[in-house]
Parts: sequence; C-alpha cells; structure tokens
Amino acid sequence: MIAPSIPKTSLGNFFEDFHLGQQIPHATPRTVTVGDVALYQGLFGGRFAVQSSDIFAQKVGYQRAPLDDLLVFHIIFGKTVPDISLNAVANLGYANCRFLKPVYPGATLNAVSEVIGLRENSTKKTGIVYVRSRGFDETGDTVLDFVRWVMVRKRNAVAAPSAEKVPDLPEAVGPAELGLACPKIGGAAYSDLLAGSPHRFGDYKIGEKIDHVDGVTVEEAEHQIATRLYQNTARIHFNQFAESQGRFGRRLIYGGHVISLARSLSFNGFANAFHIAAINGGRHVAPLFAGCTVFAWTEILTTAEVPGRSDIGALRLRTVATKDRPCADFPRMSGDEYDPAVILDFDYWTLMPR
Amino acid sequence: MIAPSIPKTSLGNFFEDFHLGQQIPHATPRTVTVGDVALYQGLFGGRFAVQSSDIFAQKVGYQRAPLDDLLVFHIIFGKTVPDISLNAVANLGYANCRFLKPVYPGATLNAVSEVIGLRENSTKKTGIVYVRSRGFDETGDTVLDFVRWVMVRKRNAVAAPSAEKVPDLPEAVGPAELGLACPKIGGAAYSDLLAGSPHRFGDYKIGEKIDHVDGVTVEEAEHQIATRLYQNTARIHFNQFAESQGRFGRRLIYGGHVISLARSLSFNGFANAFHIAAINGGRHVAPLFAGCTVFAWTEILTTAEVPGRSDIGALRLRTVATKDRPCADFPRMSGDEYDPAVILDFDYWTLMPR
Amino acid sequence: MIAPSIPKTSLGNFFEDFHLGQQIPHATPRTVTVGDVALYQGLFGGRFAVQSSDIFAQKVGYQRAPLDDLLVFHIIFGKTVPDISLNAVANLGYANCRFLKPVYPGATLNAVSEVIGLRENSTKKTGIVYVRSRGFDETGDTVLDFVRWVMVRKRNAVAAPSAEKVPDLPEAVGPAELGLACPKIGGAAYSDLLAGSPHRFGDYKIGEKIDHVDGVTVEEAEHQIATRLYQNTARIHFNQFAESQGRFGRRLIYGGHVISLARSLSFNGFANAFHIAAINGGRHVAPLFAGCTVFAWTEILTTAEVPGRSDIGALRLRTVATKDRPCADFPRMSGDEYDPAVILDFDYWTLMPR
Repeated sequence: MIAPSIPKTSLGNFFEDFHLGQQIPHATPRTVTVGDVALYQGLFGGRFAVQSSDIFAQKVGYQRAPLDDLLVFHIIFGKTVPDISLNAVANLGYANCRFLKPVYPGATLNAVSEVIGLRENSTKKTGIVYVRSRGFDETGDTVLDFVRWVMVRKRNAVAAPSAEKVPDLPEAVGPAELGLACPKIGGAAYSDLLAGSPHRFGDYKIGEKIDHVDGVTVEEAEHQIATRLYQNTARIHFNQFAESQGRFGRRLIYGGHVISLARSLSFNGFANAFHIAAINGGRHVAPLFAGCTVFAWTEILTTAEVPGRSDIGALRLRTVATKDRPCADFPRMSGDEYDPAVILDFDYWTLMPR
Repeated sequence: MIAPSIPKTSLGNFFEDFHLGQQIPHATPRTVTVGDVALYQGLFGGRFAVQSSDIFAQKVGYQRAPLDDLLVFHIIFGKTVPDISLNAVANLGYANCRFLKPVYPGATLNAVSEVIGLRENSTKKTGIVYVRSRGFDETGDTVLDFVRWVMVRKRNAVAAPSAEKVPDLPEAVGPAELGLACPKIGGAAYSDLLAGSPHRFGDYKIGEKIDHVDGVTVEEAEHQIATRLYQNTARIHFNQFAESQGRFGRRLIYGGHVISLARSLSFNGFANAFHIAAINGGRHVAPLFAGCTVFAWTEILTTAEVPGRSDIGALRLRTVATKDRPCADFPRMSGDEYDPAVILDFDYWTLMPR
Repeated sequence: MIAPSIPKTSLGNFFEDFHLGQQIPHATPRTVTVGDVALYQGLFGGRFAVQSSDIFAQKVGYQRAPLDDLLVFHIIFGKTVPDISLNAVANLGYANCRFLKPVYPGATLNAVSEVIGLRENSTKKTGIVYVRSRGFDETGDTVLDFVRWVMVRKRNAVAAPSAEKVPDLPEAVGPAELGLACPKIGGAAYSDLLAGSPHRFGDYKIGEKIDHVDGVTVEEAEHQIATRLYQNTARIHFNQFAESQGRFGRRLIYGGHVISLARSLSFNGFANAFHIAAINGGRHVAPLFAGCTVFAWTEILTTAEVPGRSDIGALRLRTVATKDRPCADFPRMSGDEYDPAVILDFDYWTLMPR
C-alpha cells in the first residue's frame, strides 16, 4: 500500500545520467528585486557606485542601478546545482563566462544547461561533466553564458558514457566580447568623487599588484543565508550533521561566497572597476570555513582596449584570496604549489571608465 | 517625583486578563514588501516557482508572485504575541487555519483576535486561552483565519475566570474551504519543467511516504532575524542572558521556524504543492536549538477533490521534522511516545495542479 | 616593472590630513529601498507603526512609511567612515544631530563633511577631529545634519595642524529645530490601538523612568550584516584575525548597533514616540561584543512644546543600554563612574502625538 518514495525525491544526476548534447532546463524561475540587492549588500558590503545608486547609474547610462554581476552569476549558478552538481565531488573550473546584458530589479531569470563534455575517470567511480549554462531574462535575452566542469559521482561503476569529449575552451574571453552588458558610459557624467577613487583605466599598469588591506570574517549564518538566497541546494553548505562525519568535519562555504567577498574587498584599489564583464577562469584552491578571515590582493594581468568603445577600457585581473593571512606581500605560489593560505585564484575582466 | 514605570511598559496579559468574547485588536500594521520576500528567501531557501517568479505566477493566474503562505502566517501570528502569548508557558496547538486570499508585496496586514475559550488548570497557576485570530489586508479582506490555544500564567492564583468554555474545533479543514486564496490555475500554463517536478496531484497516493533527504543546520542569527522580521516579541527566542538560567539553558527557536524549514525541505518531493491552503493542526513535539540540523519527511494522509475546481486537487499531508536524525526510515512514534528526535508533527492541506 | 600599490589603496586619512574648513564629499551614493527596510526590520525588530505601515503613515500625513530615522543615520554615518574615522582610536561624541526631512524608499542619499575643529593631543600621537556631516537626498535637500568628533592617529608625530579650533557645540538641540522631518500629524487619524499604546505626549512626566524589560542577544552575523548594509567599513567590526591580537581579542560591535537595539527595545514604554527628531549627544561608555545580551531603560529629561505645532510634543530622553544586566533598577552611574554594565548613554529628542 505504501509506495516507495525514491521516484519523487530528487537525488540529483549521476555521471551516467548525462549525455553529450543534452539540454537541461533548470527549475525555479526567479524574479529578482531590490530585496535581493539589499540582502546582498548586507552580506558583502559592496561600495561600487553603479550598483549602489540609481541616480549614479542613470547618469552614466544604465536604466537604474543594475544587480551586482556576481549576484546574477550566483543565482544562475544556483539554478544549475540540483541538476548538475548535487552529486559533485568537486567543482573543477569555470571558463568563458560572459555577462551579456545588465539585470535590473524586476527581471525574472531562468537557466538552461547543455552538456558539452564528458570524460570518465580511470577509477570508474567518477567522471567529469562539462556544461555550458545560460541565464535568460523574461524577454528571452541571454544575460549570462558560462562553462563549468565538475567531477560527478557514478551511481554504478560499470555504467559507461555513450560518448566522451573534452571541449575546447578559451584560455580567456577576448576583448571584443566584453562590454555587451555595459552601456556607453558618459565619461563626464561619471563622478570619481562619488565613485570613491581618481584612478581610471589609464592609471593601471600590467604587472601592478594591489593589496586590498581589509579582512572579513565569515559566519555560518552569513554564507547559509547567501547561498539560500541563490536557491543553491548543494548539501555540503547546510548540513552540519552530515558534514560532521565528512571530510572536513564542517560545512564547506560555497566557493562563490569567496568570490563575492574578494570582489567586495577589491573596491579598495579598484573603486572604478564598476563591472565584471567576463570570468576567464577560477580555482577554489582550498576550502573556506566559518570563523576564518578572508583577505585578498589583485594583479593586473592585461589592460585592453574594447573594440568600438572609447568610453571604457578593460583590465584583466587575477584576484587571489587567502584565509587568515594578510596579503601585503601578495602570497600566491610557494614553488609549484599554492601558498597554503590561498583559497581562491580568480581570473576575470573588469571594465573601467577611461 | 519619579512616576512608577509599570503602567507604560507592557508585561503582557495574564490568564485572568482574558474573558470570553473579548476582541483584541493587535498593534503594528505592517506593509509587506519584496524586501520581506528576499529575506525570507535567504532564511529558508524556498524553491516553489509560484512564490519565486512573477512571470510564472502570472501565467498560472496570480497577479504576481504571492508571499509564501507561511510568511503571511508568521507575520499575523507575530502580531498576536504581545497580547496573547507573552506570558505563555506553552503553545499547545493550532486548528482550523485557512488561507483565504493571496497576499502580494505592497499589502498592509493587521490582525484581530477573539477569545473563544478559557479553562483554568487545576493547579490554579495557569489556564488555557483559545483565540481565533484573523489577519486582514488594507482592503479589510480576511487573508488568514486560525485558532490557537496557549497555556498562560496567572498573575494571581486566586483570580478565577468569569466563565469557562472549551470550543469545538474541527479535526481538519474541509475540502470545500480550500482554494479560496488560489486562482484558477491554467493547467497548460503551469510548466512542470520550471516548477521542478513532473509529479502532479494524481501521482500521489494515500499512505505514500516521502523522505525529503536534505538537512539544514540552524544558526542563532538566522532564527532571530526571522522572528524579528515577523515582529514576534516572544522573549524566549532572543534573550540568552535570561534563558541561560531557564529550563533549557538556551534560547528556544520559534516553532514557526521549524515549520518553514520543513516546508522548504518538502520541495524535494512536492515541488508542485505550490500552496498551503490550510493547517489542520500542529504539535511542536520538542524544542529546537541553534546548532541542530533539521530533517523532514511527509506522509500523504488524504487526497481530495476541491468542490468546483477541476484545475487543482488537495493533498492532506503530515510533515514530521526531526533534529539531528535523517528521515529515510520515516521516524515518528516509538510506541505511545514520539521518537525522541521528532520536533514537529504538522498536519496541513496543500494544493497541486491536476 | 611592478608599481607600488599604496597610492591606489586607501589607508584612510590621518590627523595631519585634515584642515579647518575642509569640505569632504564622501563616496558611494546609495539608493535606499524596501529591501533595506526589511533587512533593518529583521535585524532590530522595530514595531513603530509609522515606519511599519504605509497606510498608517499616510493616514497621519507621510507620503508612505518613512525609513527608520536611525537607518538613515547609519547610512550617512557609514559614508563618512572611510574618509573620517578609518584611523580613529575612538569615536568621542555626537552633537547637534537633526533629522530634517523624511526619507522614503527610492531616495538616493549621499554625504559631505566639513572639518569644523581640530586639536592635537599632548602626546603628539593623535588629535581630535570635529566634523559636521550632512546627508542629502537626490533633490539636494538635507535630510540629516550632525557633528561628531573622533580621536584620529597621526601618521607622523612631528606634523602639526596649520590651525586648531574647538567648535562651540550646543548642549542640546532646541525645540524650535525639531519636527522638520515630521508632517503635521492628524491626531484623530493616529490610532493608539494600532500603534500599540494609549500613552501620548501629555502622559509622560519629567524624571519618569521606564524599564524596557526585554533583552536581546547579539550575534556576530547580525552586527556584521547591519554594518555592511550601511557600507560602514570600519575594520574593527569585521576582522577577527586582526582583532584576535587587538585590545579586546574580539570584533567590536559598531556603536550604532547598540543605539538601534536600544531604540527598538524602547518601543515597550514609548510606542507612540514614532520619530527621533534630534540626537543631542551620546556616549559609547563601553564596547559590546557578540554573545552579550542588551537591555535598556529610559528617563524623561524634558518635555517640550514644539513652536507652531499643536499636533505633537517633544520628549527629551536619556536611554541607557547595558550588557548582561536587566534594568529594573535603572543602572547608570556608580559614584563618579558609570556602572560597569552600562554600554550606552544616549540623549535624544523624540516626537509624540498630543
């Protein structure tokens, strides 16, 4: 008389559930609001003027203050989790992530992923799944497009994928692809005083390193509230009962939380880098746990003109975040290995007025 | 020269302050907004599409995404606390709770309670107060109507109530009373893909049990923020100094927090149960404290047609929540007693598209 | 090849960077929204009807529910921190703080400070900086005007200020300056029942003391989220790694957090004191740390007519907050010293309907 419950409860997809070319529409469309903006503000303390002030944003060419780019990323990413990475052992990387349209409060976001690569691991216990995920607004326009790859458990060791493929991925997004989500910036309308820094695109040099000085300690409630705001259901972030018996004995903080903290810290040094136009790649080098204090520093990898845009220039940045270690000496590698304090090595393009 | 302070500071009502038929208008009308929705999202991580997307909600017949039913419940409940349960020893039960009209951001809610029952306990130190509380929006329409009963301290052991009465309460809300807060659902307009599950009303059977699998650990900051969002002033949730000398040595988490956590967990298994139409009853079997991890499972008690509605069907559910104990084996009773891990036994009606 | 990073990273101003008459426009204009209101609600649990209900606020003469006065204060104050007090040893005092215009969701706030006083300390290691800070909305109207003084480190002991001056500051704001941010209150339209208390202006007497009874325990996540919501970057609130080696071994909670907690507690006794019209002064007598429970009591210092206003009267209040000590006996001084439990001694004007 009692039906088994498994069919209605999602246990997520395992490696053998994916196939090349598979299109996966994700659940729960989400209308974003000024409520999300305020909570993100309280969690990360951003100070970029474009995202903070409707008036400032309108003066430089936006309809109003757009959502923080990373908030959009986290929400779209969150939608993919129940289908893509619920059984992930590890998030291995990101590539070719491009922000394509500003997202304003009131937009309704949804997401679709396509499986673009599969490779079984030699242990036969896991495999790597490459997906291209796209976020759309209610008009059907793509607001975000990115690739990520994750190591996913197999349900059954003897199952084999019908076909395997490792996709070609660009080492970095090209400058011509930047700026689609950024209106023409009225340079005179952009107030350095209100934005908080006199330093514009031309003031930054390749190889320059900037310590963001401040540190911020993370609490369990903070990362849980953030990760739920994105409807990200990855279990490892929320379930202390299970994690107490797990690899770390603790809840693991969503890697995107570190990215947002580092971005927020980077205001001190890059106050005019008002927009993340693309993410070239990122490594979550080590896990972060509540109680740790996050620091960050940034190196300018490249400076680039954006074709057709005399209003803005692009800075390719590497932001490195650490835990419980200030960054005045720019820690990153220690020989062939990462410095043990490093938790994030993040490569992305920001735009800055010229 | 110095006037005594007691008259201006409310110490709440004691058992002998209530009388049968008494009407109690509650303080602090509250305009609900997308800010409340976002914070509730961050605290509970809901994924039901109707409450998450204005577009999805409009397609199926709502004006826009309505507030989560439990957010409405908590806000109305919170208004009653300063007058009804500030001196409560225990919240004993709920009955006949019906959601009567969708609440959208921008609505202004207030509440009135009527004393419908009184019974002094044999110890003469406490008594049971039954109140019917109603929540109204700014048009005067009733959005929520429920009965609860609480054990309240007496100020004075020799005081006796002028009249006593134990009200007749229905064991469950009848199917004809369900669906008033639910527009006619355009079945074709309801996307199972976006909602996250192919399982509709007809797929659920009486007696079926579903484990919601995931667990969520609660932090002090989370339940305090939630409970203040509802303007619920019950002292036991906020004051560690006093509670450190109290029965548990700790702050007690608002019982409604557990209900919201369990509802959110139940998405995994009931993604299309988009609306709580009524609450038949609920027992807070044991207290919850910060640091514990909450799990839940659900049994289908009844399935019912809603008279006049071919678009939806009603599932009467019993959701059981536990602390620090996964629910794969559906724990509830252990002989005549509740399993020691059970914290909530909740009986309610949800609606689902057919 | 690698440029030094110091010039782009702000380390804040030191004592010798200030000069009399200096005008300092502050960064990051901020559009306030219902999202900020909801988060502030969740953090402090306010119950004043004017700030909670658009309908109530409109009935008594506002356009809609205005932001809590202290939320406005914290946001403007937060803007001044990166320029004024990043190198502060101590926040010494406030004076002449006047709320001049109601702020509604949708307003965009920015801030400018003027240096009105400077005095080097005899140690030559620090000096006192007096600034008058003003907050403006997007129309250019002043919404808030206040003076504060802070003890700021010197970068260089031999540097001396070009000129020194200690400004004359009023001991209290005069009644004629109150009420500019308060519309004419329709007395009959003001519902005592909805506001939660029958006690109006005429019911309060000079010298009356009121214990606010309840206590609220503060969590690290709560004060961090609040302080980031205000974009306040003072390091001592966020960086446990640094503070673990500091004076207290812990993160120090923003003094304004205590003010908001005390204001919220004061509802129990002053439910109709719907508006803070001015702050005469305030002392953060001792630091507050997470885990402590805050209590408060209030003494009525003065009652005053507001010239030209028959609708409202002004109560000058001293609210004293303590940590881990209930206030039934109104603790404040112990001989010449503050009672060791006192953390805040706050002198302000509230308005109440007559």
